[in-house]
Amino acid sequence: MEPTPLPFETAFTAMTTESRSTSARPLDGRVILVTGATGGLGRVACRTFADAGATVLLLARNEKRLDVLYDELVAAGAPTPVAIPLDLAKQKDPQFEELAQTIEVQLGRLDGIAHFASQFVELSALVHQGLPDWERAFAVNTLAPFALTRACLPLLQRSPDASVLFCCEAHALAPAAFWGGFSASQSGLVALMRILADEYRDQPQLRFNLLVPGAIETPMRERSHPGETRAERRPVSELAPLLLDWLGPHSRGSSGTTVRA
Amino acid sequence: MEPTPLPFETAFTAMTTESRSTSARPLDGRVILVTGATGGLGRVACRTFADAGATVLLLARNEKRLDVLYDELVAAGAPTPVAIPLDLAKQKDPQFEELAQTIEVQLGRLDGIAHFASQFVELSALVHQGLPDWERAFAVNTLAPFALTRACLPLLQRSPDASVLFCCEAHALAPAAFWGGFSASQSGLVALMRILADEYRDQPQLRFNLLVPGAIETPMRERSHPGETRAERRPVSELAPLLLDWLGPHSRGSSGTTVRA
Repeated sequence: MEPTPLPFETAFTAMTTESRSTSARPLDGRVILVTGATGGLGRVACRTFADAGATVLLLARNEKRLDVLYDELVAAGAPTPVAIPLDLAKQKDPQFEELAQTIEVQLGRLDGIAHFASQFVELSALVHQGLPDWERAFAVNTLAPFALTRACLPLLQRSPDASVLFCCEAHALAPAAFWGGFSASQSGLVALMRILADEYRDQPQLRFNLLVPGAIETPMRERSHPGETRAERRPVSELAPLLLDWLGPHSRGSSGTTVRA
Repeated sequence: MEPTPLPFETAFTAMTTESRSTSARPLDGRVILVTGATGGLGRVACRTFADAGATVLLLARNEKRLDVLYDELVAAGAPTPVAIPLDLAKQKDPQFEELAQTIEVQLGRLDGIAHFASQFVELSALVHQGLPDWERAFAVNTLAPFALTRACLPLLQRSPDASVLFCCEAHALAPAAFWGGFSASQSGLVALMRILADEYRDQPQLRFNLLVPGAIETPMRERSHPGETRAERRPVSELAPLLLDWLGPHSRGSSGTTVRA
């Protein structure tokens, strides 16, 4: 007996293809803010989120690099991104609140923040580190992620599915000799993630997690692990599926997780 | 058979009594710096160290309370203390280095620091906390302990037996909802202790530990745990033997420890 033909197969396939190219991309319609957008991890994240349909808000200090990234995303046909040139260390509550207001007025929503900005402190014995280095590290690595997230919380709460992803080097979770201000300041970030995850534990549509990217090929990793060879590091692009999962609908309901890539 | 009389017993007892009252007190000759000297824990620590023979450097913000404590120690016959009126949040490296130099010139040594100053942040949902509160908490609870310890490290290293004791509320080790800037900033202190203990692990004469005093009867505890009854708290004086152990010779060789009182 011949199998019954499936009259809807072609139509179904066509619909799927159609969906993939437009409305079924996992981040379609979402607005995602990425700090440290022009860094090694940030650039890959921005391209990944844009390719998946998100409108990406690119926050970084260096305007030239920001322009390059912006043009790159536009050239790739991404939803028009927004460039936000800003030194996180210099902003106070009113500036962060103004930023959140501008996002609300211009885009109407915010569905996620990827906190990938980070201020390195050269590894050295603590006796050789200085208070200004520590102050800047805490300002960028802990205080700004707190104040920026706080200012955006009302917007994030109105999203049907919002994700905030913090990011740290592994020694934030296990501080050790010579990691000084870098790991001390990032340990504040670990605390921030845990506090937020706990405060919103009854709201599964809003989640807070921590990414520990490990050995990836970035300028930051080159500074923090100069003894490592390139062969020991993964290209950042390998993290794209994971970034998509943690900023997109796949991670809904998972909060307070430390994600080791 | 009659037991042989012990002819040296009396002499031995006399010597012990003599020792206890003067040269054999466990902190005799030591110089110990206490921050937050006029706080609930600080006052008991200062009196305990002074009674044990130490010259205590009393560091606190409130000059009037500092004078009262100073007079109290002098009246009790303690080695002449030194009052250091200082707002830790406002000092930079040069001021901390000047303080260390003054200690060296005037007292010739430093054998310990008890970091008991702490800046509270009212418990509340993170969305209701402000950057200024966080900045001050990090300045007092993390950055100042770093910079003060760093400035004093050369002096501490020259001591034959030096101890640095940090202090935090339990949520610094387990951040949770509503603990916000208080536990986030103190988690930086936990990192600082671990980094220092690791860097000096081969120098048993210099140690770094962390005290978690728990439920003690202090104004700070009243603010952080307003629901607790007095019956649930221990008088601070019960911690005196432990403070003596951790700032004195008993703890030699123990570094990187979290001491739950």
